[in-house]
Amino acid sequence: MRIYFAGSIRGGREDAALYQQIIGFLQNFGEVLTEHIGDPNLTEAGDDGPTDRYIHDRDLEWLQSADVLVAEVTQVSMGVGYEIGRAVESGKKVLCLHRPGSGKKLSAMIGGCEQIEMVNYHELNDLAPQIADFMKNKIH
Amino acid sequence: MRIYFAGSIRGGREDAALYQQIIGFLQNFGEVLTEHIGDPNLTEAGDDGPTDRYIHDRDLEWLQSADVLVAEVTQVSMGVGYEIGRAVESGKKVLCLHRPGSGKKLSAMIGGCEQIEMVNYHELNDLAPQIADFMKNKIH
Repeated sequence: MRIYFAGSIRGGREDAALYQQIIGFLQNFGEVLTEHIGDPNLTEAGDDGPTDRYIHDRDLEWLQSADVLVAEVTQVSMGVGYEIGRAVESGKKVLCLHRPGSGKKLSAMIGGCEQIEMVNYHELNDLAPQIADFMKNKIH
Repeated sequence: MRIYFAGSIRGGREDAALYQQIIGFLQNFGEVLTEHIGDPNLTEAGDDGPTDRYIHDRDLEWLQSADVLVAEVTQVSMGVGYEIGRAVESGKKVLCLHRPGSGKKLSAMIGGCEQIEMVNYHELNDLAPQIADFMKNKIH
C-alpha cells in the first residue's frame, strides 16, 4: 500500500516529532511516500525542494499515486488543507487525525466533510488501533 | 458572474476588515456568494452555521456553483487550502491574493501550483487593477 502522510511544514513545525511517530506506525501498513514530513531537520522555512513549483509537482505526483491520504490536521496548514481538498475531489480515501484538546479549532470544511474519516485522539497510544481499523476496513 | 471569496475564519480573523474591502471591490464584477467572510461580527469561533456539516455542504455548493474562486491566502487557513484544492482539482479558475511582507510564509502547495493565478500585493490600491485584469482576461 502507498500512503501519503500530510502534516504542517510552513504552517508551523510544533508537531514534527508526533508526525515522525505516526509515520513510523503507518509504515507497518505500507510505504509512506512523504517520510520527510517527520524529519526534525525540516524547519518551517519549508525548503524541502529547490523551488515551490518543484515541491508542489513532486508532492502532487505522490498524492495521485497514493492509495490513501492520512493527514494530521491539528496544526493549521494551508498545504494540508489543499492536499485534503484535492484528494476528496478526486475520490481518494482520506483519514484525518485530530487532537481536540490542542486549543486550535478545526476548520468546518474538514470537520464537516462527509467523505473524510475523522479520528479524534489525545496521544499516539489511542491512535494506533484506530489507524489499524481504518487500514483494515477501508482498504482491504 | 458568481464569485466565491475564500478567507480565514477559524485560522484567525486578523484580516477580516481587509476581506470586507476585497469583497466590496469584487462586487463590481458579479455576485459574491460568501459575503459573510468579511463580516466583522464573524469571529474565529466560526459559528456561521448550526453544524460543521451544514457549513461544509453550504459552502461547497456555493463553490461548485461559482465561476471563479478568489482567495486571500496570507492568513494560514486549513479551510481556504481545502477550497483551493477542490477548485483546482475540478478545473475551476482560481485567483490567490498574497501579501509577501506579512511575516507568514506561503505554502509551497499554493505558491507552486501552476493552475493558480497568484497576485502579490501590499495594499488594496495595488490589488484593484490586478483583480480587474484577471476578471477581464480569464473570464470574458
